[in-house]
Amino acid sequence: MLQQLLSKDNPRVKDYCKLNMGKQMRRREQKFTLEGTKLCREALLHGVAIDYAFITPEWAAENAVFLDELKEKQVPLYEIGKAIEGRISDLSTPQGVFCVCEVLPQIERSALYKKRKILALYDIQDPGNLGTMVRSADAFGFDAVVLSKESCDLFSPKVLRSAMGSVFHLPYHIAGDMDEFEQDMAGNGLVSAAAVLQGADLIADGCNLPAIHLLYIGNEGNGLPQAFAERCSHRITLAMKGKAESLNAATAAGILMWELSKQEK
Amino acid sequence: MLQQLLSKDNPRVKDYCKLNMGKQMRRREQKFTLEGTKLCREALLHGVAIDYAFITPEWAAENAVFLDELKEKQVPLYEIGKAIEGRISDLSTPQGVFCVCEVLPQIERSALYKKRKILALYDIQDPGNLGTMVRSADAFGFDAVVLSKESCDLFSPKVLRSAMGSVFHLPYHIAGDMDEFEQDMAGNGLVSAAAVLQGADLIADGCNLPAIHLLYIGNEGNGLPQAFAERCSHRITLAMKGKAESLNAATAAGILMWELSKQEK
Repeated sequence: MLQQLLSKDNPRVKDYCKLNMGKQMRRREQKFTLEGTKLCREALLHGVAIDYAFITPEWAAENAVFLDELKEKQVPLYEIGKAIEGRISDLSTPQGVFCVCEVLPQIERSALYKKRKILALYDIQDPGNLGTMVRSADAFGFDAVVLSKESCDLFSPKVLRSAMGSVFHLPYHIAGDMDEFEQDMAGNGLVSAAAVLQGADLIADGCNLPAIHLLYIGNEGNGLPQAFAERCSHRITLAMKGKAESLNAATAAGILMWELSKQEK
Repeated sequence: MLQQLLSKDNPRVKDYCKLNMGKQMRRREQKFTLEGTKLCREALLHGVAIDYAFITPEWAAENAVFLDELKEKQVPLYEIGKAIEGRISDLSTPQGVFCVCEVLPQIERSALYKKRKILALYDIQDPGNLGTMVRSADAFGFDAVVLSKESCDLFSPKVLRSAMGSVFHLPYHIAGDMDEFEQDMAGNGLVSAAAVLQGADLIADGCNLPAIHLLYIGNEGNGLPQAFAERCSHRITLAMKGKAESLNAATAAGILMWELSKQEK
């Protein structure tokens, strides 16, 4: 019933590796890779289209329910052995399941006008930070994520791993020009706040924040461009007291989303 | 004046590489490596003993003030070229300065009894998370960091990079047995809170938290052992509302420290 793949040179194995390694290939093919039981299951449960999956016999023996779900959805399954598993895995202890999936379509910009809380990421470069921020956005009831087109790829293996499935829970939109994007959001009544280290008019401290729909987080090294931050409705900061000059971008974003989520209690 | 190092096989270059790669070597020698202008300067400014430094001529030309500071402290300096720089650097664009430093001594356990706010990390495995948490502890006025002995090495290059100098700002202590450690802290009047996903008696939400001196954060995959959490004075959690099952450990720690830091206003 399962087709066995025995050669590392099988075209599907090669495709998996190419998609796993490179943003260009993912962009062109509009496909991405997923590894591990939990992530693959999250994808299936949230309606991600799975083109095909590689599984090891050991995995199949221990994951009967999930295997049945894959079969029900008529996902083509290929059995692989340790050699291919070792070749394609990113993990030190591979779990034995790998999927090639279709990239989720982004939502239109106009669909953002009615969102309550949007996390907007301006040129985030570290995939671990990006995934962590999407995970926090999900945890604190944000309902969309916007990425500048220079941000790292939402469907890279590292982003997907650190987001722990949250990439499949929230709609996303890729913004071309961020200045023009913010202008359009403001024109449609969305109040924005730019996370800044200096020049803030708001201190994130719970109860007294105005309603904010869009939270902008800047690049790890440089933050948000100053001119951009000044164009936003507000500039928000976190009070610090030690010798650290700044926080990790994903930590700062997490705390700001946490504070903004208190508005809705 | 500067001694030039021309060979990759120079013993100092080899020592740097060994210290940079391995926890065992760092533990045995009680030395660690640092790379980059900002981190090396933070170390010098905070009294870290620098055994010697490698610098490129390009770096020296652009960093006259820092170079003078190194000379004032009589740090032995060795000039290296691009070949050695490329060999020893962890960065995609090396900055041209590298130090071998002496590990800062940990503080005694008894020195913790008088601290106001301690971050205690139980078997943290990801160096990026560990460094990020030390950075947040610094930013929110925590005054010590405790690590279980199974946690990753505080002086690994990745931890030092993500902590952005905060490792040099806060005293640390390595706890042998965490159960016995917590018992001792409690016996000395320190109130503790264990970060948990379930079974909390405290919801982290600002103003109404009791005074807490010790915040325990657990391992990324497993959290804190349940029996350990139950032994702490309190169990604290963050209210979440989306589909994410949990937060990244460093994000959760950041938000909890942020909330606990509000007690002191």
